[in-house]
Amino acid sequence: MFAPVYLDHNATTPTDPAVLEAMLPYFSAQFGNASSRHEYGRAARRAIDQARNQVAEAVGAHATEVVFTSGGSEANNLLLKGSAACLRPGLLAVSAAEHPCVLKPAEQLARRGWTLAKLPVDGDGRIDGEHYEAVMARKPKIVSLLLANNETGVIQDLEPLAARARAAGAWFHSDAVQAFGKLPLDFRRLNSAGVHALTLSAHKMGGPKGAAALIVDKRVELEPLIAGGGHERGLRSGTENVAAIVGFGVACRLAVERRSALAAELARLRTQLEDGLLGLGAKLFGAGAQRLPNTVYFAVAGIDGETLVGHLDRAGYAVASGAACSSANPEPSHVLRAMGVDEQLARAAVRVSLGRGNNEEQVAGFLATLKSTVDRLQRLTAMAV
Amino acid sequence: MFAPVYLDHNATTPTDPAVLEAMLPYFSAQFGNASSRHEYGRAARRAIDQARNQVAEAVGAHATEVVFTSGGSEANNLLLKGSAACLRPGLLAVSAAEHPCVLKPAEQLARRGWTLAKLPVDGDGRIDGEHYEAVMARKPKIVSLLLANNETGVIQDLEPLAARARAAGAWFHSDAVQAFGKLPLDFRRLNSAGVHALTLSAHKMGGPKGAAALIVDKRVELEPLIAGGGHERGLRSGTENVAAIVGFGVACRLAVERRSALAAELARLRTQLEDGLLGLGAKLFGAGAQRLPNTVYFAVAGIDGETLVGHLDRAGYAVASGAACSSANPEPSHVLRAMGVDEQLARAAVRVSLGRGNNEEQVAGFLATLKSTVDRLQRLTAMAV
Repeated sequence: MFAPVYLDHNATTPTDPAVLEAMLPYFSAQFGNASSRHEYGRAARRAIDQARNQVAEAVGAHATEVVFTSGGSEANNLLLKGSAACLRPGLLAVSAAEHPCVLKPAEQLARRGWTLAKLPVDGDGRIDGEHYEAVMARKPKIVSLLLANNETGVIQDLEPLAARARAAGAWFHSDAVQAFGKLPLDFRRLNSAGVHALTLSAHKMGGPKGAAALIVDKRVELEPLIAGGGHERGLRSGTENVAAIVGFGVACRLAVERRSALAAELARLRTQLEDGLLGLGAKLFGAGAQRLPNTVYFAVAGIDGETLVGHLDRAGYAVASGAACSSANPEPSHVLRAMGVDEQLARAAVRVSLGRGNNEEQVAGFLATLKSTVDRLQRLTAMAV
Repeated sequence: MFAPVYLDHNATTPTDPAVLEAMLPYFSAQFGNASSRHEYGRAARRAIDQARNQVAEAVGAHATEVVFTSGGSEANNLLLKGSAACLRPGLLAVSAAEHPCVLKPAEQLARRGWTLAKLPVDGDGRIDGEHYEAVMARKPKIVSLLLANNETGVIQDLEPLAARARAAGAWFHSDAVQAFGKLPLDFRRLNSAGVHALTLSAHKMGGPKGAAALIVDKRVELEPLIAGGGHERGLRSGTENVAAIVGFGVACRLAVERRSALAAELARLRTQLEDGLLGLGAKLFGAGAQRLPNTVYFAVAGIDGETLVGHLDRAGYAVASGAACSSANPEPSHVLRAMGVDEQLARAAVRVSLGRGNNEEQVAGFLATLKSTVDRLQRLTAMAV
């Protein structure tokens, strides 16, 4: 198989070999259903308990605050719709730059009697303080803000935002799927500041697809999205995906061990990449904000992002245009539009997200290929005019 | 690890080695996000497309009728709550012997304005025709009936029941999780008879945990439980669990190839088991009904089921008491109670569910161990009196 250099780690990551190895017994010898009252069942239950401890430990939470789900989208839907179902309809506030798996359930709630406020962001993708204050003054019941944006990598300063939301009496949730493994996360500290729930996902940080978690303060009352046998303290029924949960646990342990070295290495590569991009005259989005060490979102004016991504793929580099985990969508990025980027430039956006295993040579190769591709596309455009 | 003989295949099954082998590349070399527009993404998308065809083919459905979910509980919740959200509240009918992942969402709907009718079953676990007719006369909007019961293995005669529900104007759904792989399933034929949706699950038939499907007639309008990036035709958002879906596809292919030989072998073992149980004076539940070839649900009067299961586990046989996929629940089986079994006898219930790999020697060994265990427990009971 043709294997381009993978520079799309915000879409998904390969499962770490140590993670996969830990998962394998749970497909064969230890395949039991964790609810079964025999040795196969108990072995599965012990494995889940251990993974729950590993996940909790990685983010400074208590094991009883971990609710396993099948993915980040499910965890976000559970928090938003599950908490809303236990409240009388009121004001719900999410940022205009949220992932669709927060925006769409928020819009579903808006059709069921909730009032939805989309919080504007500034030109660098940070929550606009003045508008935020105005919305908080209206006493929202639920607030959900991405910790680190999947497209731009822009990080929100969560603690003061959560503290303000708490003063307004809101449940405060943050989708931390992209931040987890790249930034230190301490749920105890965030919780003291007013954060009631965090979403984590295994496949964004070296774990398998199919396991994720909602870390949630037990004071938040939730109605399950998936009701049934009463698994996960009644908050998420269904036979546990034991192997994936085990893999998630191991990925958490590895992420904690590796995080600071990895973040330093990624930041170094990001600087190399951004220096090169600026040299090519590219525009960097969110450049004025604190960003994840691995994410670069840029545009070369006049070159369509989709087209560029296709050329780069054929030339051996896998990158994204717009949000990769959303399906075919001809609209320009809603995140960039929320940042006030004009439609033309938004259509030129390309995201590079670095990860474990990427190196200097790959970044240099990417920059060289990008330059020749852009030159070629610009010549074609000039000829067409 | 101590490995008892596994006789609990209705709880979960080991992942077939050929299934696991097919899954492995999707953790490493082909780990892409199926929504990504590069080679890694396209490889993942092709794999999902192929699995969708395999699942569809195994049940005589069209690939576009397959909605992948993370499990059977999710698929049941999606069908019930998703279709209810697109209708004005009315009458919802489910059997009293449904799995909790149908009963609980039905009860959630009952708290949101729906009227819930629990359809009684007869002493053998079959839908009571007279009551069914009376409920259909009240024009339910949604009807959901298990094709084969997870505890008793009792099979409902779906086609006339669905035809009657269709005449009443209802959407008709059936949880076919236990039937799939053990009985022939033809969605085209069932659909012509009035069945609009079926739930399937991979881990009950040699596939991995974490993949399942709702097979659904496209006329059924559904609101997604998990809203977001618009995956699965907008009905189930979230990064696809590619490896698990691939495994599900292969398990479907194998199930079709093996089904008739496997069903014959299981039926032979079941007869051996039931003959032995009757010799021990055990009561067989649902004995008068058509049942799955692999499931035997019995009781030895006066011997607590939980206690017996614990002794059998230590003696090397993994079986279940009550529904294994439900969490710790001290109540006697609601399925047996619905069948009119008295509480005392219901507490004695033990389920043996055979599967691929079980053999005559294992069944004989189980019967011998059961006999000596029952003798010992009866002596203890006699001494206590």
